[in-house]
Amino acid sequence: MNELPQQVQNMLAQLQQLQQQLQSVVSQKMQVEAMKKEAEDSLEEVRNAGDDAPLYKATGSVLVKVEKSRLVEELEEKKATYEVRLNALTKQEGKLRERLTEMQNKIQSMLSPQAG
Amino acid sequence: MNELPQQVQNMLAQLQQLQQQLQSVVSQKMQVEAMKKEAEDSLEEVRNAGDDAPLYKATGSVLVKVEKSRLVEELEEKKATYEVRLNALTKQEGKLRERLTEMQNKIQSMLSPQAG
Amino acid sequence: MNELPQQVQNMLAQLQQLQQQLQSVVSQKMQVEAMKKEAEDSLEEVRNAGDDAPLYKATGSVLVKVEKSRLVEELEEKKATYEVRLNALTKQEGKLRERLTEMQNKIQSMLSPQAG
Amino acid sequence: MNELPQQVQNMLAQLQQLQQQLQSVVSQKMQVEAMKKEAEDSLEEVRNAGDDAPLYKATGSVLVKVEKSRLVEELEEKKATYEVRLNALTKQEGKLRERLTEMQNKIQSMLSPQAG
Repeated sequence: MNELPQQVQNMLAQLQQLQQQLQSVVSQKMQVEAMKKEAEDSLEEVRNAGDDAPLYKATGSVLVKVEKSRLVEELEEKKATYEVRLNALTKQEGKLRERLTEMQNKIQSMLSPQAG
Repeated sequence: MNELPQQVQNMLAQLQQLQQQLQSVVSQKMQVEAMKKEAEDSLEEVRNAGDDAPLYKATGSVLVKVEKSRLVEELEEKKATYEVRLNALTKQEGKLRERLTEMQNKIQSMLSPQAG
Repeated sequence: MNELPQQVQNMLAQLQQLQQQLQSVVSQKMQVEAMKKEAEDSLEEVRNAGDDAPLYKATGSVLVKVEKSRLVEELEEKKATYEVRLNALTKQEGKLRERLTEMQNKIQSMLSPQAG
Repeated sequence: MNELPQQVQNMLAQLQQLQQQLQSVVSQKMQVEAMKKEAEDSLEEVRNAGDDAPLYKATGSVLVKVEKSRLVEELEEKKATYEVRLNALTKQEGKLRERLTEMQNKIQSMLSPQAG
């Protein structure tokens, strides 16, 4: 079997790097989605609680009693932060997928008979 | 040593796939069993609590005070959901074990002298 | 280099198995010690609390208010259970270390010139 | 290719050992930094709480109600302990980095043409 031309080898290396970047972005997205889901679940639970129901918030190994209004505010802010990060990661994912497709097309055209 | 016939090689590949599926189902079962056990322990603890004993429920890093009756209901629902999932996984496990035994018998009969 | 006699090879295999068993027992001991330490820390914290200080106990994601006396009792029972398990594991560890030393001595004497 | 002189091989082994020690110190530093950050976050949360806001402290699976002043004291002590450990680890890191640079320089000078 003939060795691949140097140019194709370089492109395959770039392809692999793009795939690793994509994998990392996808796994970050899953983590942020899980944290957003948790914030949303907490938010729902807090909203369903009676207005005078005692509410606590855990920070490290400490529990502090908090006002419902303040807790709702904090959780909404948390949720918004996760949404911003999710949007950024989704954009990154899209760009990486585009570049991957381009790279795959280039490699295929270089390996096709016309290019041989 | 002679190489195995292609048909046997294919069956060995299928056997390996079935074993991996079985392993995944068994490990899912163990996870669901652990979550069911946790729900049962919580349920017992809540039932043993006095009817007016303060009870809290953790969602993410938030603790919300809940009524005993509502908490019992939620935990029973949780437990029931885990039981449904456990039953489904146990059925899947049984079918996979059957198919594994069949596959092993087929391979053995193909490798036995009469089949050689 | 000469191959080791079959008997020595068997003993080396047994030696390796003993070492793995020892490793597993030692790591179980460390886990139980950590859980015992946690029970002791909780116990100290609960004892230092005022007799009418509110105390809660976590089971899964549920927090139940408990009486100081009952909590102390439960934690002492927990601690005692861990101590029983620790003693059993320490005995197992001792026996495994003895058998390992014996096995190492046997192998050494078989590999020594007088035995060659 | 010529084999490396024994002395250089020894130094490369030492270099590798230094790199592993450095890695271990750096990862310990990251852990202690995370715990210090958590203590600081808890401290801020507790300080922001009203003077009569109920505060709880988790030890194992037990929650004990604590006075604000005592909790602040405990968290400040925790934070100070982490700072002491961080300083010690930072010093260790600095010394290891120095020794690594020295070792790298020695190896380079031994492999340079003048030394050949």
